[in-house]
Amino acid sequence: MVQVTLIGSGNVARHLLSALSDAPEVTLLQVFVRNPEKAPKLPAETELISDFERLAAADLYIIAVSDSAITEVSKSFPFSDRLVAHTAGSLPVNVIDSKNRGASFYPLQTFSKNRKLDFSAIPICIETADPADMKILREVAGAISNDVREVNSSQRLALHTTAVFVCNFVNHLYRLGENICTENQLDFNILKPLILETASKVMELDPKSAQTGPAVRRDDVTINRHLEFLKDDELIKIYNTLTDSIKKWN
Amino acid sequence: MVQVTLIGSGNVARHLLSALSDAPEVTLLQVFVRNPEKAPKLPAETELISDFERLAAADLYIIAVSDSAITEVSKSFPFSDRLVAHTAGSLPVNVIDSKNRGASFYPLQTFSKNRKLDFSAIPICIETADPADMKILREVAGAISNDVREVNSSQRLALHTTAVFVCNFVNHLYRLGENICTENQLDFNILKPLILETASKVMELDPKSAQTGPAVRRDDVTINRHLEFLKDDELIKIYNTLTDSIKKWN
Repeated sequence: MVQVTLIGSGNVARHLLSALSDAPEVTLLQVFVRNPEKAPKLPAETELISDFERLAAADLYIIAVSDSAITEVSKSFPFSDRLVAHTAGSLPVNVIDSKNRGASFYPLQTFSKNRKLDFSAIPICIETADPADMKILREVAGAISNDVREVNSSQRLALHTTAVFVCNFVNHLYRLGENICTENQLDFNILKPLILETASKVMELDPKSAQTGPAVRRDDVTINRHLEFLKDDELIKIYNTLTDSIKKWN
Repeated sequence: MVQVTLIGSGNVARHLLSALSDAPEVTLLQVFVRNPEKAPKLPAETELISDFERLAAADLYIIAVSDSAITEVSKSFPFSDRLVAHTAGSLPVNVIDSKNRGASFYPLQTFSKNRKLDFSAIPICIETADPADMKILREVAGAISNDVREVNSSQRLALHTTAVFVCNFVNHLYRLGENICTENQLDFNILKPLILETASKVMELDPKSAQTGPAVRRDDVTINRHLEFLKDDELIKIYNTLTDSIKKWN
C-alpha cells in the first residue's frame, strides 16, 4: 500500500482525487485545499486539511496547483527529504523546493469540470530527480493508469507544447466552426460526425495520409471561394496561415 | 425501388458506391469511370461503363468527380430533363448543365482510401433546383444515411468552409504535433487519448466550455515557454495566430 497526499482543488486535482480514491493500491491520506469551503467530496479515509503544518508523513505528495504557485507551495512544506511531485507539463522537476526530492507526475489529458474520464487510458509522464524514487512514482502512476512513461523535463515541455496544438488549438477551430454555423442558420451537430472521424482516423492512419481538402489538393479555386465567403479578417488570417502550412508540408 | 447511376472513381465515389450497393431500397444501375482499368469492384447487378452514350435511364445520376470536371461531365450527358446531382460542397446546384434538373447530394465527411466508414451516421445535405425533385433525393439519401438535411447552396458553402477548419486544419495540427514528437524522441501514440478526448468532449460540451490551456487562462509565462521551445518561424506564426484568436474569443 502506498500513501499519497494531494495538494490542490482545480480540475487536475479533482480528476486525480477521483482516480486515486478508486485505486485499491493507493491510500489517499490527506487532501490539502486552501479554502475548505471549496473542498471536493472526499472518501471517508481521507483527511481534509488547509494548513501545511498538518501534513502527515506520506510516500508521495502530489502538488496539482497552478504553475506559478508550485514553488511557493513546496517551500511551505514543514518537512524535508520526502518525495514531492508536481503535475505541470511545462515545468522542470527542479521547481520543487530542493529541501525535498522533486519529481514530475504529468497526466497528458484535457481536464474539464463535470467531465468524467477513464483515467486508466490517460498517459502519465513521470520523472524523478533521484532515480531511486522512480519505484514509488511508478507504483502510484501504475495504480491509476495503464500507460506510464518516463519522460524527461525537456521532452515534457515538448509534449505540453504539442498538446496546445492538438487540443487547445483544435478545440478553438471547433469553436470558430460552431460560430460559422450559427451565423448561417446551421446546426453545429451536423459537424460532429466529421469532427469525430477526423480524430478517429489518426488513431490508425498517420496524419499525412489522413489529410484531405483543398489545400493538400492545391485546389486554389475552392480556397478562393472559401476566402471570399469568410470575409472576416481574423478568420482569413487563420485560414491562410494554416492553408500555407498544409501546402508547405505536402 | 429507386434507380441510381454513379459517375466517378475517386474517394467520395468509392464510398458512395459501397453505401449505395448495400442499400436494399436502391438499385445501382450503372457506374461510369473514365478509365475502366481503374474501376472499383462492382456488385453483379451493376454495369460498368466508360462511354456517356451508354448511360441508361435512371431516377438519379450522382456526379462524384473533381469540382472542376462537374459541368463538363454534365454537358456530356446524352439526355435532358433528368435529375442530376453533384457531391461538391462549395458549388451551387446550377453548375449542372441546365438541360437536366440540377441537384446537390453532399455527404459531409472526410473520405480516405482504405478507410471503412459507417455511412448511416454521415449527414447528407441535399438541395434541388426544382422542389418536385426533393422526394427522389430524400429517398436515395435516406436509404444510406439516417441524417438527411435540406441545405441551400450558400449554407453548403458555409459548411464546406467550416469543414476545412474542423477537419483539414485540425488534421494538419495533428501532423505538426506528430513532427514535434518525432524531433523529441517521443512516440506520437502518447497524444492519441488527448486527441480523441478533445473531439469527444465537444460531442457533449460546447467548444467554449471545453477550452483549456494557457491561452484561455491568459498564462503568458507558459505561452512564452512554448514559443521559446518552438524556435521554428512557421510553428511560431501558427502558435501566435491561434493563441491571439483564443484570447480574443474568451
